[in-house]
Amino acid sequence: MADKDKLVSQKEDFNEWYNSLVLKADMADYGPARGTMIVKPYGWALWENMQRGLDRRFKATGVENAAFPMLIPMHFLQKEAKHVEGFAPELAVVTHGGGEELAEPLVVRPTSETIVGHAYANWIQSYRDLPLLINQWNSVVRWEKRTKLFLRTLEFFWQEGHTAHATAEEAAERTRMMLEVYADFVINDAAIPVLKGTKSEAERFAGAQDTQTIEAMMGDHKALQSGTSHNLGQNFARAFNIQYLDRSNELQYCWTTSWGFSTRVVGALIMVHGDDQGIIMPPRLAPIHTVIIPIYRKEADKAAVLEATERISNELKDAGIRVKIDDRENLSPGFKFNDWELRGVPTRVEIGPRDLEKNSVALARRDILGREGKRFVSQQGLAATISDLLEEIQENLLDRATKFLADNTHDVDNYQDFKKAVSGGFARVWWAGNNEEEQQVKEETKATIRCFPFDQPGGTGTCFYTGKPASQVAIFGRAY
Amino acid sequence: MADKDKLVSQKEDFNEWYNSLVLKADMADYGPARGTMIVKPYGWALWENMQRGLDRRFKATGVENAAFPMLIPMHFLQKEAKHVEGFAPELAVVTHGGGEELAEPLVVRPTSETIVGHAYANWIQSYRDLPLLINQWNSVVRWEKRTKLFLRTLEFFWQEGHTAHATAEEAAERTRMMLEVYADFVINDAAIPVLKGTKSEAERFAGAQDTQTIEAMMGDHKALQSGTSHNLGQNFARAFNIQYLDRSNELQYCWTTSWGFSTRVVGALIMVHGDDQGIIMPPRLAPIHTVIIPIYRKEADKAAVLEATERISNELKDAGIRVKIDDRENLSPGFKFNDWELRGVPTRVEIGPRDLEKNSVALARRDILGREGKRFVSQQGLAATISDLLEEIQENLLDRATKFLADNTHDVDNYQDFKKAVSGGFARVWWAGNNEEEQQVKEETKATIRCFPFDQPGGTGTCFYTGKPASQVAIFGRAY
Repeated sequence: MADKDKLVSQKEDFNEWYNSLVLKADMADYGPARGTMIVKPYGWALWENMQRGLDRRFKATGVENAAFPMLIPMHFLQKEAKHVEGFAPELAVVTHGGGEELAEPLVVRPTSETIVGHAYANWIQSYRDLPLLINQWNSVVRWEKRTKLFLRTLEFFWQEGHTAHATAEEAAERTRMMLEVYADFVINDAAIPVLKGTKSEAERFAGAQDTQTIEAMMGDHKALQSGTSHNLGQNFARAFNIQYLDRSNELQYCWTTSWGFSTRVVGALIMVHGDDQGIIMPPRLAPIHTVIIPIYRKEADKAAVLEATERISNELKDAGIRVKIDDRENLSPGFKFNDWELRGVPTRVEIGPRDLEKNSVALARRDILGREGKRFVSQQGLAATISDLLEEIQENLLDRATKFLADNTHDVDNYQDFKKAVSGGFARVWWAGNNEEEQQVKEETKATIRCFPFDQPGGTGTCFYTGKPASQVAIFGRAY
Repeated sequence: MADKDKLVSQKEDFNEWYNSLVLKADMADYGPARGTMIVKPYGWALWENMQRGLDRRFKATGVENAAFPMLIPMHFLQKEAKHVEGFAPELAVVTHGGGEELAEPLVVRPTSETIVGHAYANWIQSYRDLPLLINQWNSVVRWEKRTKLFLRTLEFFWQEGHTAHATAEEAAERTRMMLEVYADFVINDAAIPVLKGTKSEAERFAGAQDTQTIEAMMGDHKALQSGTSHNLGQNFARAFNIQYLDRSNELQYCWTTSWGFSTRVVGALIMVHGDDQGIIMPPRLAPIHTVIIPIYRKEADKAAVLEATERISNELKDAGIRVKIDDRENLSPGFKFNDWELRGVPTRVEIGPRDLEKNSVALARRDILGREGKRFVSQQGLAATISDLLEEIQENLLDRATKFLADNTHDVDNYQDFKKAVSGGFARVWWAGNNEEEQQVKEETKATIRCFPFDQPGGTGTCFYTGKPASQVAIFGRAY
């Protein structure tokens, strides 16, 4: 409930603002086992809308959904050397089942490249079986030490796509295609601008040949990796023997990809758009578009106001607007305004006796609070008025976040300016360092290479750190 | 692929018919860990259609979705005595995480009453928080000894709903309401007739006060429990301290329910409607409504035939029909017919050069094979023709299965007739036995009480087994 205690402001303590907001807005709660998360109905409704937006886009590229088991024989993980190195420290291990100790332990999937690789090796015989394009919506378990709701939990919810191809070119094309799908969704549906690019070797997925990423900037200027797409080359195909007979009847290894998008983007959405009053939901994903609050003091007005509320609600629903009526009797209008602002419902309709007389309602927008964001509009054509306003809010959120990202990304060419830039945003720099030098920068500044953006200036420059000639620019930032 | 080897007939070996059909039709495959299942894209597409049909109905009753962690502290299971007794032998136990042995083992959820109960105790304060109506779509793990794809696997996919109420009456009403939702879905969407009723004490969910069930009859006359709804009374509320302040400000225990529906109904759908040629998908759930097969012998005809195929496909899609074009070049039309019949696509459109001349197509229905089910129809209005046919198939499947259930359910009043009845169907009998007598009947005949149907004749009769006066009839059958 919103009035128990007020949110701390973002400036005062961004971390605390986020943690308490997630709880207060009924987005999620802590599970009983350390580091686990319960996604509450309001948070899950947002995730379902995200799933819908992504799933539609996946299917448009020919991807089908399926489901692989969550329990994976331990030795599968060991088949790809870098993969096991990356994931072994994070595994949850089932050692007993049905009252007996297992001959071989099973791991709860931390990701499914290995079990999917095993299945693909069985299913793929010839070039006619390719490409194979499968996605699954599920949850995975990684034994994280420090956890934070939505951003990093022991179990998290996501989708993982796995594809197999006949050629290296097709796999590379698919890797990029799915990254573009993520970018398209995040920009257009979540109103979050992103930088698209390639990860450095140090930040690559364990077992990948190339990892591509979309990176967003949170309200505290830190980076959040918001979706990754991996070109696995033939690493998993060789480890799991995923082979096909080509047109000349010769046996070839496949080329595979994987790509994932998780509930951490729920956290991103909160941290990109939120303000001191709470969450601001981008309309395309908002579980509720409009909350209607009936307002009356005299019992005599109640029936007429509630009747109008119901009528207007039905009209809006018929127009495809997701409506919630808040007719709780024990709470004041002011309390309700705060409560729904906290939860980030993009628009609010207030209906009182005087509105009925004038055939109007008060319409308030979440992204512009106070008088400036509130106006009286006719009940006539209200669905269209609100639909237009929702579009306007969607655009405004993206515009604001885009400006914020641009304003806080700096081209710098020396270490002093670099340190200043990454203390409050991203630094765009020419980079020619190696893994160790990247690690040094991280230790000295907490900033890592978020990506080598696809959008490169061209030509060459001088590495800000090593002074060597550099052929590409990198984006550095401190990250969640 | 359909031609590698033919399906065994249902009469010859129903069990083998089912097992090989699930694999051949690309519905599912075995996972690498014993007893686990991979649901392949075609099977998952069917499950997604089931999910959609159920989810819509749940939400219409006020239920919201959420997600609870899969890992549950071991001691939670022990809080409800009967619950742990029922589930302890089936648990998968995580003893190690992040490279260390855990202080307390975690179980992979076999069902979530305990972890949900824990959360509800935290969330529910007053009568204003009730009813709390939450569902989750997930998978659970139960260490089954004998497994069978879709029917009984170590991990299976399902939904589990959990509700909390202020009164016993509301909980009882919700228990029945959700059973009716299941029945409505299974009858109308899956075209499977069911018997609705109450489980005997011996067959009740571990920890429930009352378990209600829908029971279907498979093609081999065996019963399949297809959805259950449990009234948990105050058992879990007391075990987890789920309490609320009532209107008089007094602390009361809640009344809770849970209800589940799983991918085993995919198995039911196959075993109820399938025939010796394969699956028959009820149109409302079919992943593909219509497969279009272009037929040409001369290369000269190819372009025109494929063009017409594409045009017709688009017309059908625009009308909401789920269409698949099978233009594989290396396969004969006859092979394709068999292949799609195996997979159970309800209608097939064939287009050849002569059809183009006549502006017609051949339209075949899966539920009536051969000449009788095939006719030539105009391309004009084809979408409407197919939509009507799909409705007709949906009805026909339900009619056939309803007749089958009725024909194989017998009212009997003595043990000899009972044995005959349960060897080829269900027996409807007056019953006044106790748990031991029910167990004796099971040992002697393999038949169990499927339910005490809600639909009772009224009055009294004589128990067929004990000879005692009986006030209710029970349905007995051999079950999966």
